[in-house]
Amino acid sequence: MDASLRPPGAGWNLLARNYDARMLRGGTLADGKVVAPERAAELLEAVIEPQDRICIEGNNQKHADFLAKALASVSPARVHDLHVVQSNIALAAHLDIFESGIARRLDFCYAGPQGLRLAQLVADGKVQVGAIHTYLELYSRYFTDLTPRVSLIAAEAADRDGNLYTGPNTEDTPAIVEATAFKSGVLIAQVNRIVDKLPRVDVPGDWVSFVVEAPTPHYIEPIFTRDPAAITDIQVLMAMMVVRGIYEKYGVSRLNHGIGFDTAAVELILPTYAEELGLRGKICRYMSVNPCPTLIPAIESGFVETIHCAGSELGMERYVAERSDVFFTGRDGSMRSNRIFCQLAGHYADLFIGSTLQVDLEGNSSTATLARITGFGGAPNFGSESRGRRHGSPAWLQAGREAHRGGMPRGRKLVVQMVETFREGLSSTFVEKLDAWELMDTFNMPLPPVMVYGDDLTHIVTEEGIANLLLCDTLAERAQAIRGVAGYTAVGRARDRHMVEKLRERGAILYPEDIGVDKRLASRDLLAARSIKDLVRWSDGLYAPPARFRNW
Amino acid sequence: MDASLRPPGAGWNLLARNYDARMLRGGTLADGKVVAPERAAELLEAVIEPQDRICIEGNNQKHADFLAKALASVSPARVHDLHVVQSNIALAAHLDIFESGIARRLDFCYAGPQGLRLAQLVADGKVQVGAIHTYLELYSRYFTDLTPRVSLIAAEAADRDGNLYTGPNTEDTPAIVEATAFKSGVLIAQVNRIVDKLPRVDVPGDWVSFVVEAPTPHYIEPIFTRDPAAITDIQVLMAMMVVRGIYEKYGVSRLNHGIGFDTAAVELILPTYAEELGLRGKICRYMSVNPCPTLIPAIESGFVETIHCAGSELGMERYVAERSDVFFTGRDGSMRSNRIFCQLAGHYADLFIGSTLQVDLEGNSSTATLARITGFGGAPNFGSESRGRRHGSPAWLQAGREAHRGGMPRGRKLVVQMVETFREGLSSTFVEKLDAWELMDTFNMPLPPVMVYGDDLTHIVTEEGIANLLLCDTLAERAQAIRGVAGYTAVGRARDRHMVEKLRERGAILYPEDIGVDKRLASRDLLAARSIKDLVRWSDGLYAPPARFRNW
Repeated sequence: MDASLRPPGAGWNLLARNYDARMLRGGTLADGKVVAPERAAELLEAVIEPQDRICIEGNNQKHADFLAKALASVSPARVHDLHVVQSNIALAAHLDIFESGIARRLDFCYAGPQGLRLAQLVADGKVQVGAIHTYLELYSRYFTDLTPRVSLIAAEAADRDGNLYTGPNTEDTPAIVEATAFKSGVLIAQVNRIVDKLPRVDVPGDWVSFVVEAPTPHYIEPIFTRDPAAITDIQVLMAMMVVRGIYEKYGVSRLNHGIGFDTAAVELILPTYAEELGLRGKICRYMSVNPCPTLIPAIESGFVETIHCAGSELGMERYVAERSDVFFTGRDGSMRSNRIFCQLAGHYADLFIGSTLQVDLEGNSSTATLARITGFGGAPNFGSESRGRRHGSPAWLQAGREAHRGGMPRGRKLVVQMVETFREGLSSTFVEKLDAWELMDTFNMPLPPVMVYGDDLTHIVTEEGIANLLLCDTLAERAQAIRGVAGYTAVGRARDRHMVEKLRERGAILYPEDIGVDKRLASRDLLAARSIKDLVRWSDGLYAPPARFRNW
Repeated sequence: MDASLRPPGAGWNLLARNYDARMLRGGTLADGKVVAPERAAELLEAVIEPQDRICIEGNNQKHADFLAKALASVSPARVHDLHVVQSNIALAAHLDIFESGIARRLDFCYAGPQGLRLAQLVADGKVQVGAIHTYLELYSRYFTDLTPRVSLIAAEAADRDGNLYTGPNTEDTPAIVEATAFKSGVLIAQVNRIVDKLPRVDVPGDWVSFVVEAPTPHYIEPIFTRDPAAITDIQVLMAMMVVRGIYEKYGVSRLNHGIGFDTAAVELILPTYAEELGLRGKICRYMSVNPCPTLIPAIESGFVETIHCAGSELGMERYVAERSDVFFTGRDGSMRSNRIFCQLAGHYADLFIGSTLQVDLEGNSSTATLARITGFGGAPNFGSESRGRRHGSPAWLQAGREAHRGGMPRGRKLVVQMVETFREGLSSTFVEKLDAWELMDTFNMPLPPVMVYGDDLTHIVTEEGIANLLLCDTLAERAQAIRGVAGYTAVGRARDRHMVEKLRERGAILYPEDIGVDKRLASRDLLAARSIKDLVRWSDGLYAPPARFRNW
């Protein structure tokens, strides 16, 4: 409630009194806290008021899809002009409510496949976008100016007191729940089942207003599963360079991996290539990342010792439960994920490594593509220098010595982009100007949507070599270091050979032979697992890949 | 557990099996989950193993002091070489355990009054300091390489199932509890009382191993209470400059205040000076800060609309409960604090403003003083550029336009230091070289302990004027902008008058007359409350100041 809207003489605790009124209306539809699924839309009409800020939970691994559809079916005459504040726009229902006028304003993080339709709705004036956030930013605004009035969340199970069990996919729930429940907001949970006794309590019933048993389990998708069969020899070569030229050089032990095939290749050569180099116990010990199946061989080999996850991954449930030394799990055996802590662990880690679609000559990179509104989720947080960090580690201090020569000494986070010089369709990854500039104009954004800024980036790894941007003193040197690993792209061909050679002498450009990487060994043979079936074998049968990944 | 320590053939889930063994030993001393206070030391001897990582909860507003003392009384023959991983070293018992060899290694955030003794123990080789962290960093390491094996926490009350009620001082509890409970760690809570039915559940009983009813309520101190009677005319002048030259100029609506008298002065002129300027509803609407009593007049006047708190403040309980529109509270009325979310809200806000003891000519600042090991708690996180931020706001975009002239456009967080040119004892705030350099040598630290780095800082406000560092293009200009507001200190007297005049023309230096601040009005008369008694009056009698602040 904006204080400026407080009517004179209205007194205080208006939100709490308003909550009581909503609960009175909603309570007539409930048996205790439990509302029958066929009355879900009626419940939403009873407890949601026009112009409410509302959050429909949904992120990578679970979605309050039943409640989202119920909301899309309410009468726009009763519920309208809502302000949606949620991390993901992923389901058709998330946009249907804008089409019908139930919602009007939107603050979010990530749109994915709905990005095209979202762009159209913005152009049609049906959606007013406030801003596109990273996850932690949006959660932080839940506690300042974007606190939800009503939140629709998803959990695995509930008991009749409203206690919730989220199982392995806790994800965003703690942030949404805490902001809503402790600012007199209404919290409605859809659950797969209502039981007498929960395996564990993830959200205290005190905090929950209503529970609805959905007719079908909440939507979930295996989006972090990468089939090793699709990893190429070139990706293995790049992975070898990462291991020798970055992980070994700096002694990187705490890190966050992106979720592409490039980093999957790194994970899969830990038990082979890195093991031979004697790097076990020295690199890659603590990770914050989803439980990607390609991590299994590195876990089984004793490389990765601890993993904290933002969410879970379909098929990994039993494996995670049986590897509680590595993953965070409850006493019931299932994982406890939490996007806040995973994002924090990644932000303050020694290194982030991911991929991108475009890189310019300052090193700015973006995955934003024309005609869609997407957003970056957590990547800008992982992939940015942690300026508030004060504790040292060998990797952070060594990177800091390279970055801050002269002046106040300090540490530096390693931020690495791992890209092939040409993408599919033979378009160049390296560009003079990012598409982000055009996107800014098209969608009337205040700034170009850059995922990782050039001055946050420390290394670019391509199949040609590694550019170490920390050792570049000027923007001109930085541009040449980037050209020097940009291969046969137009950007790469326009390199100044003399300057590139000087940068190489200084170590600002490293080619495979400079770091002892034998290109002849760069083949899929180095992968500890070459198929999903191999991963199952490594897991001792505990990993149960979803049907679409089984071809045996 | 380090995987490298995993004995061959030992299998998996070793931590969980070890947890069961500890619980079996501890269980013999318990009635269900409840352990009698006189058996607390015995319990700790039963469940703690040598070399365990251990966390004793304690921060600004509450301390597990009973359990800390119990730990100090265990036999060092049984419990020894512990690795302490906790935010605060505040109680004598926290260091007693190092003296006796119960503990050996330490990773922490902040030492405060124990800093002197800590320094001595380090010199004596009794404490091996790993690193000094900010809060979020340490929490993030709880989920990577510093997960506690046993945590001793404090809560207001428990029921017999182990459900905990933290009341208004939740503070660090969620971070500690989640990391410990979900990595098979032992969680022991000291509570002020065990009851049949809790006012609300803050921590589910599932997650808690043992509960001990302490003989005395946990230690708590009113550390955020500033008596308006001690605010000076000079502080009022600086506050006026902040309101006009920064808050009004940029339209700062989301922010974090430090806890000194300087920022208290800003809070207390909102209902007078800022109101007259028509700034209500335009500045200072959303804050992340503890419930400082000096905020009361600004809340009552409708200036500050929402406050999220890291912890509570003694005496503010009833006021907070009756202002649930502003504060985050549970349905029981008492506040819900949470340091994680408060730190995040502050980090991603538009502005941080605080004070410091020393500033050098690059703008690096530090509160670290010789002969003590202290740490900075949350200030480096609040006071650093949020490089992972991607959503716009008017203040952030305007600061970004000043900071990034040419090149990739982006936003910028405002980070302000508000200091008088001379501190008590007439030592200069402005120095050529920070004491932090000497501290680094004395304590063998890897880096000088800088609180806010110069390139994160955007403004310095003194009684002479405002230096806007965003508008300085070179380090030489930056140094002159700082000299230009450094008054009659040696640093200030050494200014280049010509350069300072040019910086002033450009707006990089602003004196009161440049921003319409009438120095003649700068007196305590502008304060909405001039005493603690005034604050009580503003609160309608709801604020109940601790005895030491009552002089009527």
